[in-house]
Amino acid sequence: MAKLRVETDLLGQRQLPADALIGIHTLRAAENFDVSGITLQDFPAFVQSLAMVKKAAAATNLELGLIEPIIAQAIGRACDRLIGGEILVPHFPVDMMQGGAGTSTNMNVNEVIANLALLEFGQQAGKYDTVNPNDHVNLSQSTNDVYPTAIRLTVLREAETLLGTLRALVAAFRRKGAAFADIVKVGRTQLQDAVPMSLGQEFEAFAETLEEDVAQILGAAELMREVNLGGTAIGTGLNAPAGFSAAACAHLSEISGIMVRPARNLVEATSDTGAFVSISGTLKRMSVKLSKVCNDLRLLSSGPRAGFGEIRLPAMQAGSSIMPGKVNPVIPEMMNQIGFQVIGNDLTVTLAAGAGQLQLNAMEPVIVLNLLQSMQLLAKGMDTLRTRCIDNIEADAERCRTLHNGSLVLAASLNPFVGYARAATLARNALAEGIGLREAVERDGVLTPEQIDAIFGTSTLRVLGTVQG
Amino acid sequence: MAKLRVETDLLGQRQLPADALIGIHTLRAAENFDVSGITLQDFPAFVQSLAMVKKAAAATNLELGLIEPIIAQAIGRACDRLIGGEILVPHFPVDMMQGGAGTSTNMNVNEVIANLALLEFGQQAGKYDTVNPNDHVNLSQSTNDVYPTAIRLTVLREAETLLGTLRALVAAFRRKGAAFADIVKVGRTQLQDAVPMSLGQEFEAFAETLEEDVAQILGAAELMREVNLGGTAIGTGLNAPAGFSAAACAHLSEISGIMVRPARNLVEATSDTGAFVSISGTLKRMSVKLSKVCNDLRLLSSGPRAGFGEIRLPAMQAGSSIMPGKVNPVIPEMMNQIGFQVIGNDLTVTLAAGAGQLQLNAMEPVIVLNLLQSMQLLAKGMDTLRTRCIDNIEADAERCRTLHNGSLVLAASLNPFVGYARAATLARNALAEGIGLREAVERDGVLTPEQIDAIFGTSTLRVLGTVQG
Amino acid sequence: MAKLRVETDLLGQRQLPADALIGIHTLRAAENFDVSGITLQDFPAFVQSLAMVKKAAAATNLELGLIEPIIAQAIGRACDRLIGGEILVPHFPVDMMQGGAGTSTNMNVNEVIANLALLEFGQQAGKYDTVNPNDHVNLSQSTNDVYPTAIRLTVLREAETLLGTLRALVAAFRRKGAAFADIVKVGRTQLQDAVPMSLGQEFEAFAETLEEDVAQILGAAELMREVNLGGTAIGTGLNAPAGFSAAACAHLSEISGIMVRPARNLVEATSDTGAFVSISGTLKRMSVKLSKVCNDLRLLSSGPRAGFGEIRLPAMQAGSSIMPGKVNPVIPEMMNQIGFQVIGNDLTVTLAAGAGQLQLNAMEPVIVLNLLQSMQLLAKGMDTLRTRCIDNIEADAERCRTLHNGSLVLAASLNPFVGYARAATLARNALAEGIGLREAVERDGVLTPEQIDAIFGTSTLRVLGTVQG
Amino acid sequence: MAKLRVETDLLGQRQLPADALIGIHTLRAAENFDVSGITLQDFPAFVQSLAMVKKAAAATNLELGLIEPIIAQAIGRACDRLIGGEILVPHFPVDMMQGGAGTSTNMNVNEVIANLALLEFGQQAGKYDTVNPNDHVNLSQSTNDVYPTAIRLTVLREAETLLGTLRALVAAFRRKGAAFADIVKVGRTQLQDAVPMSLGQEFEAFAETLEEDVAQILGAAELMREVNLGGTAIGTGLNAPAGFSAAACAHLSEISGIMVRPARNLVEATSDTGAFVSISGTLKRMSVKLSKVCNDLRLLSSGPRAGFGEIRLPAMQAGSSIMPGKVNPVIPEMMNQIGFQVIGNDLTVTLAAGAGQLQLNAMEPVIVLNLLQSMQLLAKGMDTLRTRCIDNIEADAERCRTLHNGSLVLAASLNPFVGYARAATLARNALAEGIGLREAVERDGVLTPEQIDAIFGTSTLRVLGTVQG
Repeated sequence: MAKLRVETDLLGQRQLPADALIGIHTLRAAENFDVSGITLQDFPAFVQSLAMVKKAAAATNLELGLIEPIIAQAIGRACDRLIGGEILVPHFPVDMMQGGAGTSTNMNVNEVIANLALLEFGQQAGKYDTVNPNDHVNLSQSTNDVYPTAIRLTVLREAETLLGTLRALVAAFRRKGAAFADIVKVGRTQLQDAVPMSLGQEFEAFAETLEEDVAQILGAAELMREVNLGGTAIGTGLNAPAGFSAAACAHLSEISGIMVRPARNLVEATSDTGAFVSISGTLKRMSVKLSKVCNDLRLLSSGPRAGFGEIRLPAMQAGSSIMPGKVNPVIPEMMNQIGFQVIGNDLTVTLAAGAGQLQLNAMEPVIVLNLLQSMQLLAKGMDTLRTRCIDNIEADAERCRTLHNGSLVLAASLNPFVGYARAATLARNALAEGIGLREAVERDGVLTPEQIDAIFGTSTLRVLGTVQG
Repeated sequence: MAKLRVETDLLGQRQLPADALIGIHTLRAAENFDVSGITLQDFPAFVQSLAMVKKAAAATNLELGLIEPIIAQAIGRACDRLIGGEILVPHFPVDMMQGGAGTSTNMNVNEVIANLALLEFGQQAGKYDTVNPNDHVNLSQSTNDVYPTAIRLTVLREAETLLGTLRALVAAFRRKGAAFADIVKVGRTQLQDAVPMSLGQEFEAFAETLEEDVAQILGAAELMREVNLGGTAIGTGLNAPAGFSAAACAHLSEISGIMVRPARNLVEATSDTGAFVSISGTLKRMSVKLSKVCNDLRLLSSGPRAGFGEIRLPAMQAGSSIMPGKVNPVIPEMMNQIGFQVIGNDLTVTLAAGAGQLQLNAMEPVIVLNLLQSMQLLAKGMDTLRTRCIDNIEADAERCRTLHNGSLVLAASLNPFVGYARAATLARNALAEGIGLREAVERDGVLTPEQIDAIFGTSTLRVLGTVQG
Repeated sequence: MAKLRVETDLLGQRQLPADALIGIHTLRAAENFDVSGITLQDFPAFVQSLAMVKKAAAATNLELGLIEPIIAQAIGRACDRLIGGEILVPHFPVDMMQGGAGTSTNMNVNEVIANLALLEFGQQAGKYDTVNPNDHVNLSQSTNDVYPTAIRLTVLREAETLLGTLRALVAAFRRKGAAFADIVKVGRTQLQDAVPMSLGQEFEAFAETLEEDVAQILGAAELMREVNLGGTAIGTGLNAPAGFSAAACAHLSEISGIMVRPARNLVEATSDTGAFVSISGTLKRMSVKLSKVCNDLRLLSSGPRAGFGEIRLPAMQAGSSIMPGKVNPVIPEMMNQIGFQVIGNDLTVTLAAGAGQLQLNAMEPVIVLNLLQSMQLLAKGMDTLRTRCIDNIEADAERCRTLHNGSLVLAASLNPFVGYARAATLARNALAEGIGLREAVERDGVLTPEQIDAIFGTSTLRVLGTVQG
Repeated sequence: MAKLRVETDLLGQRQLPADALIGIHTLRAAENFDVSGITLQDFPAFVQSLAMVKKAAAATNLELGLIEPIIAQAIGRACDRLIGGEILVPHFPVDMMQGGAGTSTNMNVNEVIANLALLEFGQQAGKYDTVNPNDHVNLSQSTNDVYPTAIRLTVLREAETLLGTLRALVAAFRRKGAAFADIVKVGRTQLQDAVPMSLGQEFEAFAETLEEDVAQILGAAELMREVNLGGTAIGTGLNAPAGFSAAACAHLSEISGIMVRPARNLVEATSDTGAFVSISGTLKRMSVKLSKVCNDLRLLSSGPRAGFGEIRLPAMQAGSSIMPGKVNPVIPEMMNQIGFQVIGNDLTVTLAAGAGQLQLNAMEPVIVLNLLQSMQLLAKGMDTLRTRCIDNIEADAERCRTLHNGSLVLAASLNPFVGYARAATLARNALAEGIGLREAVERDGVLTPEQIDAIFGTSTLRVLGTVQG
């Protein structure tokens, strides 16, 4: 039978395995919040960020003479092990969906670090006289500044991943835009045949609309750089010495390689979740755009015989358990669903942000859970979309041309010659009689053969000439 | 210059036009909440419902001996004038978007009724000794029971209108389902050609999916019948005599022609907004369904030459300021947008419902505003959709047949004969070689001519035989 | 090195471990949709439901003479092993967030069942001539009917769990309502002192408002009983013999112990997701109510010295890493966050439901993911709320009384004696002078001592007399 | 009887009053979209923006030699009359909730301008040979570029108003922050007494959190400056001469006084609604923050006797129809509801943005309706909040001090002296025994009187010393 140790808190005593890295606070939290099955250890980047914050705090406490060097160094080495990913499962079992505004997450990290330091000293886990989770690891800190600071750092790091996948996806669309530049087709508004364009223009527009989000993500991420570290409980900096905030941010920037700085008003920063609303809103915007693009890809590839059929998506798997030979746009469909999830998650973030009260927002745990899930879903989804769909899309140039030539989309080109009203009559006549627009114009007799040639011969060149890029 | 009178409340004195039907409470409220421009008088049905509640309360107070007959009767006659729509603009100027949990709306009605009664007695408006807005018109009541009761009554009445338009729309789709029963076409899943069906089946499905909402609306409306009238301030019935609640509900049912009854627990009923969340959720569901149907109508009518083109929506207006002859699906597009509005409004209702605190939900004004707007938008939208679109949809049977015959949708019919894997190969071969499925099967040689005839000759009949309804 | 086998589909060949229960379709799907990390095997109840559907289909095919008895029985036994939970990890690795409308999930189940049957026959996995995933296990079925049928069955089963936890929670609130029936306190509207009530009434209202959702869940679950099994690809029943639908539903009801029946219109039922919107909306409503209740619990327990302090929640863990002795309402906070998640998930479900097109809704995978997560979160959350919070709430009767006696909440009781306007003046005077209401009334002199005794002496009894339930 | 004239479009003929400024397109649109009751003329700023676009187009057409000077000048003068607000009701009767992607709005403006020009020429309205709505007023344009350009211009103008009210509100909070700087009070996290702060810090934080949105609105508005004018139907610039886009934007900037420029990719810009999602998301963020602030104001002013009671909101109206003397936080409640509306509207905008297809988003009408309503609601709401609430808030310094002194919020100050665990025990003892923290520390005996004085004497100064700003 395993050896046990006893720890005590204000509620009483609890037994733990003698060598457990977690302590009584983590134990109670794991029991109290057994609801989502998604735990801290499912987000290694978040654990790393928390350890970076702890390391920065220890370095600052050392600098300010608040802690003995030997303790600070042991804490720092324990943090390094977490940052290196050496210690993870099952030492961070606290549910991400937790009450207490992140206190359980913070204490989980405090306890693991304290015990790692104790073990390094050759002491037993749980003998907190030497290294105490609260008095040493958490010194000059509060959950209320550590937790949001670590969230922000994690979001900043995930944003880099997200931007990389976004840029790669944009480049993939640009390549298709160039490849399809010469393919004339029907442009459609409101699902009705409108005026000519090139397939390349259509894919360039996909690239452009997504590329615009690069700046949006950068802008929203910038807001994450303002952290409230040093504000402790409510931003007044109680129990943190003067200068702690600036020094700790400097250490954290160096440790993480990501620049952070103290917020202008730490009281405000402690309860404010506006920056999370902003970046979540930006993810929502990305999702709206990705959904629109995927809807278009599915429309354009509808068929193979009774749809638009202008492009062919690569076949990734058999499409049906009953319809032989059917191939479906499964990758865009997956991306659409990720978009729906991110938009739903944004609402969750919004609701949680609106539930802050007075000097704190106790709902930050559900915010970080949803933000990180959304960012990871989008990154993985976009990578999948690029490699398993966009890169291998083929155009059906013949189909594009056939549809274009059989349509009435050159009617607007008649306006300068015959006016809008007469052009409308010619278009409606062609439609009613089931003939081409050129034939309807020729029958009409108002334009000379030279004019007709000019209109119907040059429009294609004109379309291609307007491809932008 | 108009004559003025002075009224007093706990904040001090204010002047009003001597003959104003409103009093000091309405005046302050109109000033305090000048934000949305949408006022009580924009919702005549709500004013009527409030007057019905007041009339029921007066009758009950008379019955219980709390008020003199002459006063009760004068209040009743004033209510009748409001119910008849005789008094409306500009006597209900209070913004629908108001703080105070509806107190301003209730006092607006109390003051107008009191002054109407005073005028009937030949007294001057504002001389509240004889008929007092609080002590007589509001006797045995509180805003906290009057206001939600009137909301519920209004919702019940609007639900009747909504159901009428919904049923008419369903019938219109059923008529088209019958008219299109013989038109064979390609059924599509995931926008890919799937298996055969009839156009009639498609329209029958539209009818069916919408008809299912009749029961949902009836169910959600049923929850509205439980009112908290008689609960007064917080549901404990303070200042209302025993029996008031049951008697007032009986009077209200008779006056309005709509059955209402006291909630089982008046304390709970006073702060609860669950029934509003339910009916709003039902409107959301309707919107999702209507949006899906309108999306399908727009897809099926895409073209005229480079789209699906299986149906033609009636042309309601020129579609473009630049593209001559273009006609757009403007009515379904309008319905889609109404759907988006209703779904957004549902979120507003949800947020407001979640903001109740302790013994009241102070956010009911924004709930009633959004609920009534959504119900009216849906009713008007569905009427417009029916009369300006569905009733005049035409099928392009020729196009349906051509697309069907050129497709590979009979591949699944091969499964029982050759198995799924071989059928898949045949379908992919046909697609790759650009030939019909029958030709691919014939080339393959595995099936006898009799089998081939059986498969390709009967499937149409089979489709038509399965039309339901 | 492990032995390998080769499988083939329309895209080509792939190698698998020779004894893998999954086949090529599952392999491709697992690769294509590696995005959320949440896989089919994370939802054992869903796998069970799928197996129940497969078993019912096999039994029906046997009955209708479409399949040899030995095959049907082997399929049935394989299904039983899945239903028994014997086979799960790692055999269902497909991501829940998948494109393809559930085809990958259906094929995962088809392949595992076929291979289990083959192994039982002493044959090698992958030798599908004897038992084929499509031609035998999926016989007379399509993903488009199997998948939504299994979702509905799963939701029905989860609903039973949810109702159990809800009823237990309601009972816990009722017990507290009875225990606190004699504690008089200030009732509050708009966070302002209003009129007296008992703490028991407050807890009874919590019970009542939650109990109302029992009927709502039952009603929404009822919609789940209509399934489209037998409709195959698009609801026309292609490749399913006459009578399949009714017989398969009968078998499924018997196998699962849960009554299901064929939808009235299978074409409509195949693309319709209205029932999912309904139950998700009901979960949203529950979340709104639970959030409101938890907000109230947090308000009422605010303090311990500078808040309302009328109740004490049980201390579940230390509340702060810096503030010694602080105890926070962590369990209600967790429940609030679950509520936010469920409301966000409802939006995801709504968006997905609105994205159905023509004969199918390809977005069902994200719907089932969110529905099941929401139901499980709510069930676990409510259990936690009951056992770790409600059951051990204590009242601070002394605090309730002190606040009540120092307040002006009896002002409304003066109305019948002095009228609303005079009562208002008395209340404002008391407030301005910092005295009690009784003292202000006594100074005023308008009421006799007997009247004053009547008002201030009986109101408490009156409050207690109105406790309901 | 009024004289009539006849106009013709591709659907046939319609009669109009002979002097009507609207034409047949507006007439049909007004009939087709009679759903919301909210018409173009309810948004004068939008009509003005449309006229500015038309004036800029006419000037550009003149410059490029496409139109005769006399026509261009007449169009310009007609535009000026619209810009000046001279012509509005009832000449813009088209419902804002319209199908057709804004074509009806564009044609409404085209027709009114053409007829104003005709009247100036002394010709009859409707005689479009001289000045034609399509061929002259709409020359080189399409709804698809005019409509979104005018929306963006309007949003930019409304953003200026919004920023003005926001900045004024921030200043009002700052003034209160300064006024309340010396009032020590209990800071609260999770509604539990936490550590000391000043009331000034609390109000400074309100100012700060709102002020951060200034930059957010400016950033989102900046995206509005990129317009697609010159792109015509789908962004390819069909029927617009080279150089039109740049020249028209230059003219529009000059006419409106607001800088706009052509988007980099006009095809993308024509279907993209990302900028609307961004600004709507920013309004959502503002709403979340305003809601949080208003929630806090309502909490802090709860009472007057049985709540927190730390501040007093100005009384704006009697709070109840039954509870005499009750005054409610009606203005913050109104602001909360505006927030809920804006968040709901944001969902509507998001849904509409996600519904774009191929070369256009036909759902822009519901986007502009919701955006403008949200911006106006927020502006009016914030003005009301400032003038009718914030400016006249009073602190109850005595109450703040009493609550602070009776609380245990100095427990965290003990940490450096006795460690977290011992401090926790002291705090729990004080709570259990109903005594003050100082007394508990004194009984404990571990600290010297000098240490005790240091802790309990200086903390107040420390709090006040940390007031920022």
